[in-house]
Amino acid sequence: MQADKKQINRLLKTAYGQLEGIMRMVEDDRYCIDISNQILATEAVLRRANKEILKAHMKSCVKNAIAEGGGDDKINEVIEILDKISK
Amino acid sequence: MQADKKQINRLLKTAYGQLEGIMRMVEDDRYCIDISNQILATEAVLRRANKEILKAHMKSCVKNAIAEGGGDDKINEVIEILDKISK
Amino acid sequence: MQADKKQINRLLKTAYGQLEGIMRMVEDDRYCIDISNQILATEAVLRRANKEILKAHMKSCVKNAIAEGGGDDKINEVIEILDKISK
Amino acid sequence: MQADKKQINRLLKTAYGQLEGIMRMVEDDRYCIDISNQILATEAVLRRANKEILKAHMKSCVKNAIAEGGGDDKINEVIEILDKISK
Repeated sequence: MQADKKQINRLLKTAYGQLEGIMRMVEDDRYCIDISNQILATEAVLRRANKEILKAHMKSCVKNAIAEGGGDDKINEVIEILDKISK
Repeated sequence: MQADKKQINRLLKTAYGQLEGIMRMVEDDRYCIDISNQILATEAVLRRANKEILKAHMKSCVKNAIAEGGGDDKINEVIEILDKISK
Repeated sequence: MQADKKQINRLLKTAYGQLEGIMRMVEDDRYCIDISNQILATEAVLRRANKEILKAHMKSCVKNAIAEGGGDDKINEVIEILDKISK
Repeated sequence: MQADKKQINRLLKTAYGQLEGIMRMVEDDRYCIDISNQILATEAVLRRANKEILKAHMKSCVKNAIAEGGGDDKINEVIEILDKISK
């Protein structure tokens, strides 16, 4: 992975902690809307991690592959991810 | 929370396991696109958990509040969540 | 439809005008990224119109149906829409 | 624009026709949920047009710019669009 490992780890750990919190909220029978909001917050952190990973990927792997005369496979991979993100 | 606790727990545990896997992938310097796909899969599981929670919430809390002559606050809460989901 | 017709019409006309602009941009061979940004802006206006329609629907049709002792069908319809929005 | 003009035009005309239909539905006071479903369908067509435009853009403009030794601006533009899509 080409993204800043420290930043990605920080984001993933945040999501991990949020998810542990959500499992406790379910256990404690907390209010549905509060749990729902926490799930949305966790999704937002994962989306941010994913965007950072994709940015770094395009700026390194994709770019290098194209500069070396190829890159079509890499572009197709990014497009497949884009397809999933923009369903 | 009104949703089926067992189902929600199963979904949250799945997301939790996926997230642990993603953190290992980052540690092991795995390919960006593989990590990105795993993050998208985890988001999909969280979205599913959230939808189940909201369904159950509408079919119980919201419905009961309206049947008892109120419910406007509950409807507004659901609309706020809808606003966040449909950004 | 229960939403403020004037507001919904205004939003739909905005989207309509944007779409006409986008078709001209395609005709004039404008820059891809500029066209992409205009499409995203049009989607945002449609999402807003949809949210206003759903809000009004929940505050009137859904609420009234529940208050009259029913409403399960109406709740299921809203959940189906939620399912599509939160794919 | 680099995408297949015919295909993009076809998608945009579909969205345009759908939008005209939606405005008539609002005029005719049709059921909220039916209008909502039509709006979602129109958004889906616009998303598809946008994806086709971005695919073609990456496979031509972005790729060519990188192959000519540049491309950082183009990559940043695609990332900005990705940021908007994945809010």
